[in-house]
Amino acid sequence: MSVLVVGSIALDTVKTPMAEHADLLGGSASYAALGASFFSPVNLVGVVGDDFPKEHVELFRDRRIDLDGLQTVPGKTFRWSGEYMWDLNTRETRSVELNVFEHFTPTLPGGYSETPVFLLANIGPNLQNHVLDQAAKPKFIIADTMDLWINIALDELLRLLKRVDMLILNDGEARQLTKETSLIKAAAKIRGFGPKYVVIKKGEHGALLFGDGKFFSCGAYPLEDIHDPTGAGDTFAGGLAGWLAAQNGQAINFDALRKAVVYGSILASFNVEAFSLERLRTLTQNDIAGRYEDFRLMQQFEIIE
Amino acid sequence: MSVLVVGSIALDTVKTPMAEHADLLGGSASYAALGASFFSPVNLVGVVGDDFPKEHVELFRDRRIDLDGLQTVPGKTFRWSGEYMWDLNTRETRSVELNVFEHFTPTLPGGYSETPVFLLANIGPNLQNHVLDQAAKPKFIIADTMDLWINIALDELLRLLKRVDMLILNDGEARQLTKETSLIKAAAKIRGFGPKYVVIKKGEHGALLFGDGKFFSCGAYPLEDIHDPTGAGDTFAGGLAGWLAAQNGQAINFDALRKAVVYGSILASFNVEAFSLERLRTLTQNDIAGRYEDFRLMQQFEIIE
Repeated sequence: MSVLVVGSIALDTVKTPMAEHADLLGGSASYAALGASFFSPVNLVGVVGDDFPKEHVELFRDRRIDLDGLQTVPGKTFRWSGEYMWDLNTRETRSVELNVFEHFTPTLPGGYSETPVFLLANIGPNLQNHVLDQAAKPKFIIADTMDLWINIALDELLRLLKRVDMLILNDGEARQLTKETSLIKAAAKIRGFGPKYVVIKKGEHGALLFGDGKFFSCGAYPLEDIHDPTGAGDTFAGGLAGWLAAQNGQAINFDALRKAVVYGSILASFNVEAFSLERLRTLTQNDIAGRYEDFRLMQQFEIIE
Repeated sequence: MSVLVVGSIALDTVKTPMAEHADLLGGSASYAALGASFFSPVNLVGVVGDDFPKEHVELFRDRRIDLDGLQTVPGKTFRWSGEYMWDLNTRETRSVELNVFEHFTPTLPGGYSETPVFLLANIGPNLQNHVLDQAAKPKFIIADTMDLWINIALDELLRLLKRVDMLILNDGEARQLTKETSLIKAAAKIRGFGPKYVVIKKGEHGALLFGDGKFFSCGAYPLEDIHDPTGAGDTFAGGLAGWLAAQNGQAINFDALRKAVVYGSILASFNVEAFSLERLRTLTQNDIAGRYEDFRLMQQFEIIE
């Protein structure tokens, strides 16, 4: 099965305490699509300007990502610039230029509406709803969001939540959305808004999965050095969605979602090892299998082989 | 096998956003000894004043804790008072009265020096070192510490670390002790100071175990309501040490320590469900076995039964 990924495609300028790089490939859809592409075919929906470097299009093609849904329009590509503080846990946005993204209307080409798994990566909930309006009957719909939309588009976001199977968000956003300090209570409240499943990402503390009266706690891979946290959450969502889509004909239940969360965490852990999408460019199935084994060992406390 | 627990015994006044209670049984040794007592015999070393309520002594006796090492001296028992903020994650110490604790010298009665597992719960590292000076040849020595000792008794603490098998501390303390922001690097540096194993407690984010080139990530039990976080870390250390001591004749290696961390987490998760040691008073082996199963399910992503 394939996964449809819609979101932003950007050129990022990223500064960390160690280095600064300009005009990197970025955006929620870029990270999510590449993450998913390690497991399943991907239909990408997004927009770029006519300044978008050909090498980035080539990277998508190399990863066998379908680009029928990629609009190229006159003007400049969406640009984002941000700076990470010394602990790499907090970041400041330095500038945002919407450019061609300002008038983006995500339109699904021919066969895309039949895609079984939809990943609505982080963009405005109005656009996420617009994509769902064009969907046939997806088997599983995942949405990501961010603090900005909770602040300025809450009604639209709540309308979206009634239509999706899973919401992915970070701990701060979960608290902001629900006004609950306890993540356990926050997840229960979010499930009350609609999604059957909720994933709360906690950065260096891993991720929590809630649903079906069950709970799964996934640790974070113990990386000594993180080079660029940008896109970690998007790559997580992409890996999760791609792995789910690859389980042809299997039921999407809590036990399947446990593994999906692990594969999302694996992809994200690789992604932060280098700037932009550089690490995913060279990532192999062997790398993924090796880290899966590491996750198994770091989570288990019975029957250790 | 039995475990020797040395630490503070206190009368606590605790204020949370929900309630306030005075003259509760507290102190690192009280929590640690009760935690350990669910798994193994405990030899308690500590000091109280002649005002120490008989009911607390009875609680220790009910849990079959050996009190030959409990000194009762003229004067008032150590008193601590603290207040938790709205999120229960941060607390302020309101007052400390050392009282009889000021001149406490932990002296091991007859057979105590032969105890196989030593838990040096949180007290000054000079006292922890003094206890080790009296030890025969313990099979496994665990030390807990806190920010205060890192600030005012670092040399003595570093001397202690050369003598112990495991250090337990929280994430903030690990960063403070090593000046590393990455907990992975912090743990490696602490192991360089002496302890073969390091446990980093992360409160609502669980606990990490490092050693033997391996890594174990233990999630926190998903509690909807926490009533009093006081003593969670001490109860964790006690449960961990007690469970280890109960594995008669088994090697204390990384795989045994994984389970010990889980049992410590289980005891701590119960303890925060009520003020002081109230929850442990009524805790049963069935409760513990049930929550062990919950931990198994929340950590596993393969072979879910």
